[in-house]
Amino acid sequence: MKKHFLLVTTLLSLSLGTAHAQKEDSLTIRKIYDEVLEHGKSYEWLRQLTSEVGPRLSGSKGAEKAVIWAKDLLEKQGFDRVFLQEVMVPHWVRGKKEEAFILNNKQKVAVPLVALGGSVATPAKGITAEVVEVHNFQELRALGEDKCKGKIVFFNRPMDAKKISTFEAYGGAGDQRRSGANEAAKVGAIGMIVRSLSSTLNDHPHTGSMVYATGVPLIPAAAISTNAAELLSKSLKENPSLQFYFKQNCETLPDVLSYNVVGEIKGTEKPDEFIVVGGHLDSWDLAEGAHDDGTGCVQSIEVLRLMKNLGIKPRRTVRAVLFMNEENGVKGGQKYAELAKQNNEKHLFAIESDAGGFTPRGFGIQGGSANDLTKILTFKDLLDPYGLHEIGKGGGGTDIGPLAPLGTILIGFKPDSQRYFEYHHTPIDRFENVNQRELELGAASMASLIYLLDKNF
Amino acid sequence: MKKHFLLVTTLLSLSLGTAHAQKEDSLTIRKIYDEVLEHGKSYEWLRQLTSEVGPRLSGSKGAEKAVIWAKDLLEKQGFDRVFLQEVMVPHWVRGKKEEAFILNNKQKVAVPLVALGGSVATPAKGITAEVVEVHNFQELRALGEDKCKGKIVFFNRPMDAKKISTFEAYGGAGDQRRSGANEAAKVGAIGMIVRSLSSTLNDHPHTGSMVYATGVPLIPAAAISTNAAELLSKSLKENPSLQFYFKQNCETLPDVLSYNVVGEIKGTEKPDEFIVVGGHLDSWDLAEGAHDDGTGCVQSIEVLRLMKNLGIKPRRTVRAVLFMNEENGVKGGQKYAELAKQNNEKHLFAIESDAGGFTPRGFGIQGGSANDLTKILTFKDLLDPYGLHEIGKGGGGTDIGPLAPLGTILIGFKPDSQRYFEYHHTPIDRFENVNQRELELGAASMASLIYLLDKNF
Repeated sequence: MKKHFLLVTTLLSLSLGTAHAQKEDSLTIRKIYDEVLEHGKSYEWLRQLTSEVGPRLSGSKGAEKAVIWAKDLLEKQGFDRVFLQEVMVPHWVRGKKEEAFILNNKQKVAVPLVALGGSVATPAKGITAEVVEVHNFQELRALGEDKCKGKIVFFNRPMDAKKISTFEAYGGAGDQRRSGANEAAKVGAIGMIVRSLSSTLNDHPHTGSMVYATGVPLIPAAAISTNAAELLSKSLKENPSLQFYFKQNCETLPDVLSYNVVGEIKGTEKPDEFIVVGGHLDSWDLAEGAHDDGTGCVQSIEVLRLMKNLGIKPRRTVRAVLFMNEENGVKGGQKYAELAKQNNEKHLFAIESDAGGFTPRGFGIQGGSANDLTKILTFKDLLDPYGLHEIGKGGGGTDIGPLAPLGTILIGFKPDSQRYFEYHHTPIDRFENVNQRELELGAASMASLIYLLDKNF
Repeated sequence: MKKHFLLVTTLLSLSLGTAHAQKEDSLTIRKIYDEVLEHGKSYEWLRQLTSEVGPRLSGSKGAEKAVIWAKDLLEKQGFDRVFLQEVMVPHWVRGKKEEAFILNNKQKVAVPLVALGGSVATPAKGITAEVVEVHNFQELRALGEDKCKGKIVFFNRPMDAKKISTFEAYGGAGDQRRSGANEAAKVGAIGMIVRSLSSTLNDHPHTGSMVYATGVPLIPAAAISTNAAELLSKSLKENPSLQFYFKQNCETLPDVLSYNVVGEIKGTEKPDEFIVVGGHLDSWDLAEGAHDDGTGCVQSIEVLRLMKNLGIKPRRTVRAVLFMNEENGVKGGQKYAELAKQNNEKHLFAIESDAGGFTPRGFGIQGGSANDLTKILTFKDLLDPYGLHEIGKGGGGTDIGPLAPLGTILIGFKPDSQRYFEYHHTPIDRFENVNQRELELGAASMASLIYLLDKNF
């Protein structure tokens, strides 16, 4: 009887203890959201970054300005430490604006086209050739040199609209942009154009990176808008021997010294263990990089500000890392992991926000044990009231990826994805397309998760 | 042993049966989403409604055009039956554009102001008076006639930014707009202005309805933009005896004959039982009523189109109802319920989409038994992959509300709420602020839910 009584009281006190901890966590998370929704700073910081710094492709003056801006901003917050990490980054420049036309009989229709990042230029007089439309590499290979030699290969497989996650649709179409030029060159094409990776029909060509394979001729690669892709495809059906002209003036200059920008709050108990939250500071050159990835940068800084401001003292050191060169090289992400390894820094978790500043839906977890995942899933009840319903396997992030071999658990912040690929890598990825509350909720989501991770692991 | 064997095989076949049904449901829902995301019509319909019809306040020419447009569109779809329901609706007109100024010493600062729907006009020369700023009715009553007589009462309690659901924040501030004029008149005020019910600081005044109480003087009531409210409040702190001037020219004309527009697909098994999906066809006069509630209308029609197009034959009759006069009277909703009762129509479920065309998050259920709710919650696994995580008590809708006494289970469609109150009742509630995929996902969500309700109840 006594034994039973003991067991009951022990269980009771344990469960009261848990209930008490849950209550405390719930109040802390509520405080984080209150602070962000009433006094959040990330929106104003994003306004500064997009308007005062603007486009900031790796190696550009804009990227240099962004580093100074970010370091200055972090220093003003009075965090425990702010520092730069040197990293050499590629320096690709677009040069003079591209030109492109469909030449159909006597008609000459201008087409919105942008060079893909990393591409070579066309000859000075441009390229004029017939067009072979294909939808995947298999189809291209089946056509072979016979049908493709001396022509421009046109990849026209759209993002699959049926995918609920537009990132899945993007993933399913991305090979055309990344490797299309190599595949086209292998069958003798002299140029490659790709339908923009966009979730809607519009007139904005989307740039993005491509990488030349070794041993394959370097042919110029460009993206045309989705509307132009539809038009070109239709025109080809009417006149298979129409010609396409494009001229681009891009070039790759020598690598440039640049920086990751890091701010940190020292851990009270385990200062040598780290939790990272980050986004990438570089953007494409066409726009001011609001959703990609200004939002991830300002949210990461806001996470630290929230902790400091609310007196949340993390047991581990929490770092906001603004990575350089996600778009065309990931040199910043690689350097960060290299230094972490070199300095024997134990990185428990790294969270990346690089999917836009939209309403938070959850987190994707990559790495760690089944037990780790189970523990993270116990946070569900605390995060549910804030719309964070999608917590599970998946996720990660390009910049934090290189930390995986160090045993770090990688977490991708998952905002709602419906609008992202309208803006992604286009001139309309602008501040006015970011919603203040949606952005702020993202910062609060990540701050809450870090609070829970730090406390429970 | 035999008994056990029997039990086991029965359980097994039951569970296989359930698994089979779940599989079938899962495939049907996938088909609904595929169709909507690849061939959805609602976005093009919304473009027509907003650009070709435009603003459509009850009693206006626009509302008349909207009825014709909707009936015509429904008829073109070849549904089993399309009909109108006559209903008399209020006819309030704004008249000539309003004027307003803060008169602070010798400064005269123009202020964006709109009359509230239902308000009387000011005298022809406008109203000029000192301003008393308050934040709630209690504060106003404490000040009393002494401080308020002959003045303009200014309600300046913002929507609570801390609420995650902006609808909760709207609910918490709405009394000022709806009843502020009555409370102000009771303490002798000669006019009432209210801070716009907006989730951000901006220059768009938000209109909306107000209702005069009986036995209280009718004083003019208007909303000013949130930026103007901030400015006025600041100016009052510096100079409490500044004056405010406004002039509005609205009036209430005799009631007008208008219509609910209804389309239906006849039920195969129980044609006399009904499931309703609807939105409201009227809008405020300031804008083209895209999110409020063009989206709800086109989604409702799309639900029927999806069922017809995919060969989903409902057991009950499914109706798309475009209600007239949600904004300032709910006469259409009341008439619909009145006729349902009169015709002895058994309405099992009514779903309303009137929270904007944003990414779906779930459904709020109102009415029905605990068992009903439990049964609806069994749909969770089928709806989860589509981001419909928030299914539970709450919800309903203004137009379907009058069906409650008939025992109808009311369901409010819940899209993400973060952006809604930037557009709501303002000139920027426009087509270009609706995202195609977000809109279409809403139609698919409701079609899927109706499919499951019809099959399982």
